[in-house]
Amino acid sequence: MQSPIRVDHHPANSLRRNLYRILETTTGKKRGVSLVFNLVLISVITLNALAIILNTVPSLRQRYDRFFVDFEVFSVIFFTIEYFVRVWICVENEKYRHPVFGRLRYMLSTTAIIHLLAILPFYVTLFHTDLALIRILRIFRIFRLFRITRYSRAFQVIQSVVEDKKEELVLSVSFLMFMLVIISSVMYYLEHATQPDKFSSIPATLWWGINAMATVGYGDIHPITPMGKMLAGVTAVMGIGLFALPTGILASGFAEHIRSQKAVHKPHCPHCGKEL
Amino acid sequence: MQSPIRVDHHPANSLRRNLYRILETTTGKKRGVSLVFNLVLISVITLNALAIILNTVPSLRQRYDRFFVDFEVFSVIFFTIEYFVRVWICVENEKYRHPVFGRLRYMLSTTAIIHLLAILPFYVTLFHTDLALIRILRIFRIFRLFRITRYSRAFQVIQSVVEDKKEELVLSVSFLMFMLVIISSVMYYLEHATQPDKFSSIPATLWWGINAMATVGYGDIHPITPMGKMLAGVTAVMGIGLFALPTGILASGFAEHIRSQKAVHKPHCPHCGKEL
Amino acid sequence: MQSPIRVDHHPANSLRRNLYRILETTTGKKRGVSLVFNLVLISVITLNALAIILNTVPSLRQRYDRFFVDFEVFSVIFFTIEYFVRVWICVENEKYRHPVFGRLRYMLSTTAIIHLLAILPFYVTLFHTDLALIRILRIFRIFRLFRITRYSRAFQVIQSVVEDKKEELVLSVSFLMFMLVIISSVMYYLEHATQPDKFSSIPATLWWGINAMATVGYGDIHPITPMGKMLAGVTAVMGIGLFALPTGILASGFAEHIRSQKAVHKPHCPHCGKEL
Amino acid sequence: MQSPIRVDHHPANSLRRNLYRILETTTGKKRGVSLVFNLVLISVITLNALAIILNTVPSLRQRYDRFFVDFEVFSVIFFTIEYFVRVWICVENEKYRHPVFGRLRYMLSTTAIIHLLAILPFYVTLFHTDLALIRILRIFRIFRLFRITRYSRAFQVIQSVVEDKKEELVLSVSFLMFMLVIISSVMYYLEHATQPDKFSSIPATLWWGINAMATVGYGDIHPITPMGKMLAGVTAVMGIGLFALPTGILASGFAEHIRSQKAVHKPHCPHCGKEL
Repeated sequence: MQSPIRVDHHPANSLRRNLYRILETTTGKKRGVSLVFNLVLISVITLNALAIILNTVPSLRQRYDRFFVDFEVFSVIFFTIEYFVRVWICVENEKYRHPVFGRLRYMLSTTAIIHLLAILPFYVTLFHTDLALIRILRIFRIFRLFRITRYSRAFQVIQSVVEDKKEELVLSVSFLMFMLVIISSVMYYLEHATQPDKFSSIPATLWWGINAMATVGYGDIHPITPMGKMLAGVTAVMGIGLFALPTGILASGFAEHIRSQKAVHKPHCPHCGKEL
Repeated sequence: MQSPIRVDHHPANSLRRNLYRILETTTGKKRGVSLVFNLVLISVITLNALAIILNTVPSLRQRYDRFFVDFEVFSVIFFTIEYFVRVWICVENEKYRHPVFGRLRYMLSTTAIIHLLAILPFYVTLFHTDLALIRILRIFRIFRLFRITRYSRAFQVIQSVVEDKKEELVLSVSFLMFMLVIISSVMYYLEHATQPDKFSSIPATLWWGINAMATVGYGDIHPITPMGKMLAGVTAVMGIGLFALPTGILASGFAEHIRSQKAVHKPHCPHCGKEL
Repeated sequence: MQSPIRVDHHPANSLRRNLYRILETTTGKKRGVSLVFNLVLISVITLNALAIILNTVPSLRQRYDRFFVDFEVFSVIFFTIEYFVRVWICVENEKYRHPVFGRLRYMLSTTAIIHLLAILPFYVTLFHTDLALIRILRIFRIFRLFRITRYSRAFQVIQSVVEDKKEELVLSVSFLMFMLVIISSVMYYLEHATQPDKFSSIPATLWWGINAMATVGYGDIHPITPMGKMLAGVTAVMGIGLFALPTGILASGFAEHIRSQKAVHKPHCPHCGKEL
Repeated sequence: MQSPIRVDHHPANSLRRNLYRILETTTGKKRGVSLVFNLVLISVITLNALAIILNTVPSLRQRYDRFFVDFEVFSVIFFTIEYFVRVWICVENEKYRHPVFGRLRYMLSTTAIIHLLAILPFYVTLFHTDLALIRILRIFRIFRLFRITRYSRAFQVIQSVVEDKKEELVLSVSFLMFMLVIISSVMYYLEHATQPDKFSSIPATLWWGINAMATVGYGDIHPITPMGKMLAGVTAVMGIGLFALPTGILASGFAEHIRSQKAVHKPHCPHCGKEL
């Protein structure tokens, strides 16, 4: 987030530089203001998510509808201003130095796109009356929460663990998918004749398969033939074993990460250099 | 629990000192009486909890109601006397030396508050006839069991493991909460139109979400649209992965704790000091 | 199982000694016969368990009832003769040398008691006509399978792992029980008013509690009030964490055991003696 | 897959050698063509599996039935030609050098049998009109997917982990089976009288048992008597513990495998040779 700031004495540039220090850096001068701004931003995002969630409760929607709409409008205006300010000031960062192409490149960065996706749906719904589209766009509103992840250590740790163990995860998830397809297909052939409404097709049986492997067992769909039950038993046992793979990988990766961050410089054996 | 005991020869103080030795210390003089008293205390608490549990079984309540009430009255009187004795004798402890402020500070300690909460509800229900309040206060009665935890190594071990791994637990639980909110919100938008009675609001969908992530699957609420089922499948798989994090942390923390307690002084390598 | 065998030349003693070698030792002279006898024994026990299981299938019972009864009678006669032979020959073992007290002590050993429990129910049902008692005694028949465990390495490994980690298991299971009682009690108070038929008493709620903590979720009983659902969510999350403790302990104990058995003598560092 | 190729200058042999290089080797000359061919093969297999899956969706089957049948015929012809080509060229491999016995031995290799099983069902269904048989043979079609596993690293890793830990897995799975039989038998005797339709026989109760141990809990079958519920609770707790064994084994085996493949030669301590 930090980057060298060029010295420039035009008054607009001076404002831009100060805003940059507040919005994009967390150390150096303006650190106090920066902290306050970030806290305000996190609060607005969290309250906004809370409003979106509570707005779906019928009794609350009826009573406080006015308030929810007002708060949504306020949030979007706040996020919109913030977005344009960030685009304006991004040139202070060495990476986006060029007034036009630098700003364009900033606008295409993941952070800026997440930011834009948090406000765009609101403007689209203003000009559109297609209810199906509006419903889809409403889903996007909750993704505003992802803006918080930038400030969350939890998210950063998980992200780096997943990246560290990417190969193992891809490997075990692909094996899981393979077994899921095989097992669901066989189950379909075993159960379809007896329960044509539930095991109606292989894609429909995948729903059973994933829940059987993850041992969820909602109970809406399960085999009733002896052969089907036998396969379901094997699947449950195997599912636990298969899930052990990614699970163990993530857990050990997480433990390694935490350990490596906690490690302080300790004296080492002069012979083999191992930690004492 | 142990602390130096001041020498003082007034007869009341002598009694107080002896009671202190019995109730608050487990070593030194009066160790035998102390052990007996603690066993009696643990028995009363356990039997009381058992009585509370059995009292909720209709057939037993009807037959032995009289006995349950009597035992409850006896327990509360026992705990009340014990409470006042403990407040009286606490000044024997260096920490609570002052006759007034020391006793007040003792009364605000966690142990004393748990003790008070174990008896207070009984007295409140004597003077109140508000049934809703009485019902809530009844819940508190079972918390008397927490008084036992002071004597249980299991509880102490778990507590120290949780404290050791606090950071990792907070981190993974906060990530879990974040994903829970995101997934439940998306699921609400996907399923609400089809099952407006079950996925009635995002808070209602959180109930599905937590059970899907923990792979409980009661079966009272589950998606039926293809998109919803797909999200539920991903959630189950991801849930297992996410739970692997706190789970692995606790398990390894527990193993470390046990190992460190079992570790006896063993000879070490003269070169690097590692355990041989 | 092996023990020094006294030299004795009476013909009955000679037979006894040979039988002892066959039935109770697996090395030395008579090893071949011993192996054959043990294989026959394991086969009879396994086939007997299979017969007990298949006998409960109505269609099979009707058709092959005669065969099942005959096989049961044959098995019991076989086990009975074997039992008396073992009691007769046990004096060949140094531990049970005395003709009367030695034999009595043998009869009180775990192995002999399991053996007796495998045959006694049959004889009791011959003289009793109380159907309730007969049904209970039938349960015991399946425990004959435990006689096999003496020959199974799996059982021995698990047993030694459980013994190694006894302390940790007791500790975590007692904590589990404690939380189960607390959570079920609170859930009872939260849900009883709304679902008096399902959450009818605290003992009845324990059924919900154990399934919620183990994330089984049969769906026959689950909270419907917002507070109850919240507690159920916390319970599921906590349950996974709590089960991680004994689970991790067993898994690591098992891994240690296997590793220690696989370990071959390897060269060690002359400095610190650690394995190279 | 690679093997020394004999030098031979007959034109048919030259074609055979080139085909062998393309189909059976992935390095050396013809590497580019080999890669393209393998990609085409994987695509045909994957698309074929997708067609089999989608063909079971009624709406898709009605609309695109013609296409599905055509694609199936095309795939089988493709696989058949490939099969005969592979049998023809296998003599280029030192292992299958003999024109008759070498080819026979190739045809009995696992790879060739899987290949044959992928095409044979199609030809059998052409000459048979027995619907039951055709349905069974349809199941086999999905096994064509197993041909992909030859190209998948995931499958190879899992396979080698399972082989490494075979002993531990057999041990823990056999213990699981033992407990499953014991618990299900006892549960049958406890619940049969109350729920004769659900716990109808011990084999039927095994379905409950496996789902209880794996904590699936579909909810179609669960105990209702107090004793049965108690046993089910113990089973759930024990099931988690028992599954911890194979699960931990697989996870650690997987971690070891990945680590050993990632391990690069690093400098070692001159004293004890341990990795620095």
